[in-house]
Amino acid sequence: MFELTLSDCADNNENAFSKGAAFIDGEFVPISEAKLPLLDWGFIRGDANQDTVSVWRGNFFRLEDHLTRFFRNIDDLRMVSPYSREDIADVLHGLVRRSGLREAYVQMIMTRGLPPIGSRDPRTCVNRFQAYCIPYVWIARPEQQMEGLSMHVSNRWRVPAQSVSPRLKHYHWLDFEMSLFDGYDRDQQTACCVNERGNVAEGPGFNIFAVFDGAVLTPENGVLDGMTRRTVLELCDELKVPYKREEFSPDQMCSEATEVFLSTTSGGVIPVTSLDGQSVGSGKPGPITSALHEAYWSKRETGWHATPVAYQ
Amino acid sequence: MFELTLSDCADNNENAFSKGAAFIDGEFVPISEAKLPLLDWGFIRGDANQDTVSVWRGNFFRLEDHLTRFFRNIDDLRMVSPYSREDIADVLHGLVRRSGLREAYVQMIMTRGLPPIGSRDPRTCVNRFQAYCIPYVWIARPEQQMEGLSMHVSNRWRVPAQSVSPRLKHYHWLDFEMSLFDGYDRDQQTACCVNERGNVAEGPGFNIFAVFDGAVLTPENGVLDGMTRRTVLELCDELKVPYKREEFSPDQMCSEATEVFLSTTSGGVIPVTSLDGQSVGSGKPGPITSALHEAYWSKRETGWHATPVAYQ
Repeated sequence: MFELTLSDCADNNENAFSKGAAFIDGEFVPISEAKLPLLDWGFIRGDANQDTVSVWRGNFFRLEDHLTRFFRNIDDLRMVSPYSREDIADVLHGLVRRSGLREAYVQMIMTRGLPPIGSRDPRTCVNRFQAYCIPYVWIARPEQQMEGLSMHVSNRWRVPAQSVSPRLKHYHWLDFEMSLFDGYDRDQQTACCVNERGNVAEGPGFNIFAVFDGAVLTPENGVLDGMTRRTVLELCDELKVPYKREEFSPDQMCSEATEVFLSTTSGGVIPVTSLDGQSVGSGKPGPITSALHEAYWSKRETGWHATPVAYQ
Repeated sequence: MFELTLSDCADNNENAFSKGAAFIDGEFVPISEAKLPLLDWGFIRGDANQDTVSVWRGNFFRLEDHLTRFFRNIDDLRMVSPYSREDIADVLHGLVRRSGLREAYVQMIMTRGLPPIGSRDPRTCVNRFQAYCIPYVWIARPEQQMEGLSMHVSNRWRVPAQSVSPRLKHYHWLDFEMSLFDGYDRDQQTACCVNERGNVAEGPGFNIFAVFDGAVLTPENGVLDGMTRRTVLELCDELKVPYKREEFSPDQMCSEATEVFLSTTSGGVIPVTSLDGQSVGSGKPGPITSALHEAYWSKRETGWHATPVAYQ
């Protein structure tokens, strides 16, 4: 497993943006001042789409891929961005530059916005763009990653594709939130949901992988087309680890998987070493998980898929 | 059909709250100034619950029932309200009083709030209460109600109960939003979704009823326990209209229903007179719909289930 440490940012305490920065209503503000109109349908109808890109050692990861997915989803939602792709890239650079952060979590958000007073027609809304950057967010802290996480496998369905396209990065997360509470009740550190066929789907902010007979499996349908998920499959190619985009049941995962891991922008490749109290394999991060973790982070340190932040 | 007109509010143009008022961060502000922290999980995780009560002729409708449901749902979401039930009732009166509105749409909202920086654990969030009141909102304006609405029956699933409890009044509405767009493409005025069994479920802000052989049917499972829905069933009892809490398919609704109508806090009992271009029954609001519409509004005018707003 790769050792993960955050960079020192010496001047951070003197900077109003050091806790994070936001771009909202066309202006850059400290994160604590970032506010959304209460009546934006992004909130009161969950009618929003986001994309989150990470910065590590001063480099955005797969920035162009994130922008491509963001604009595809805006189209799918029949929204129109008030800013061009180039403008938005500039905003993201501007956020990280102001924060001074070398490792950051940067989210761009399009909301339906507000309609004229009294209208309930989404076509009349003025779509809004906002974005923010905060210090890098971990689903599991580096020291937790060395041990691996415990995970509750909920029988709750992830919001199905028949309701909302899983291609969108939307904010319909109550399924995840309530599964997390169920997990905490069982002394688990995180939780995942199943799909409407009862097979393993995804968790709050991560895709799921399991190793069966030396091959990596990850569900393909009804889950987010995660950027780190794509990255893991590329790394499998590179490391000659066989994989299939195929779903599996909670029972198969609990009884037959030799390794389980998560992929996420908030921490990369994260081992799961127990499921509802039962060890996965040896109960320690397995060799495939560790190799992918190591490859993901060592390649990121050397500028893989990188766009340097314009700090000046 | 009952004739619906809004009261005159002579002083409204001189009042900063006449377009609406909000209660946020413990203060009353004009609606245009009401803003939510961008990082409130109510927004970035859709982790919120609301309840909406209407005011008509200066009276709240079923205020205590709304408060009971609101607090039940807060419990279900494992949130803790920073305000008591009595405090919240006072806030709602305070909002309407400041606005001077005689007919209003009043929404109370509990959000998960914000966690300490870096935490992804919902138990560490400080739950937040906010509320707002705006002029009465119509799903269909009174003149549209006289004719009846056209509705698209989408094959999109309403977010199913296996994902999120339909008892909650949550903001997971992308299924509705995208169905509305599909409806507009087909020149329909509104839209509804089906449940995971393919039967008629509900639409954006309303429950659905259809009349078959003189009896009213409305789905029971996987739909919101709507306050106006409850009210309609009480009126059926009173008017001796037979009804069943039973679901039906889109095909049955389109080919066999003699009347279709919606129930909503945003307009009461609203006839639907065509479905995807095909007339329902005679193509005009039917006798049961009209009787329920008339009863709903005439009883509201006379103070049924009413709590007078404390305007002084």
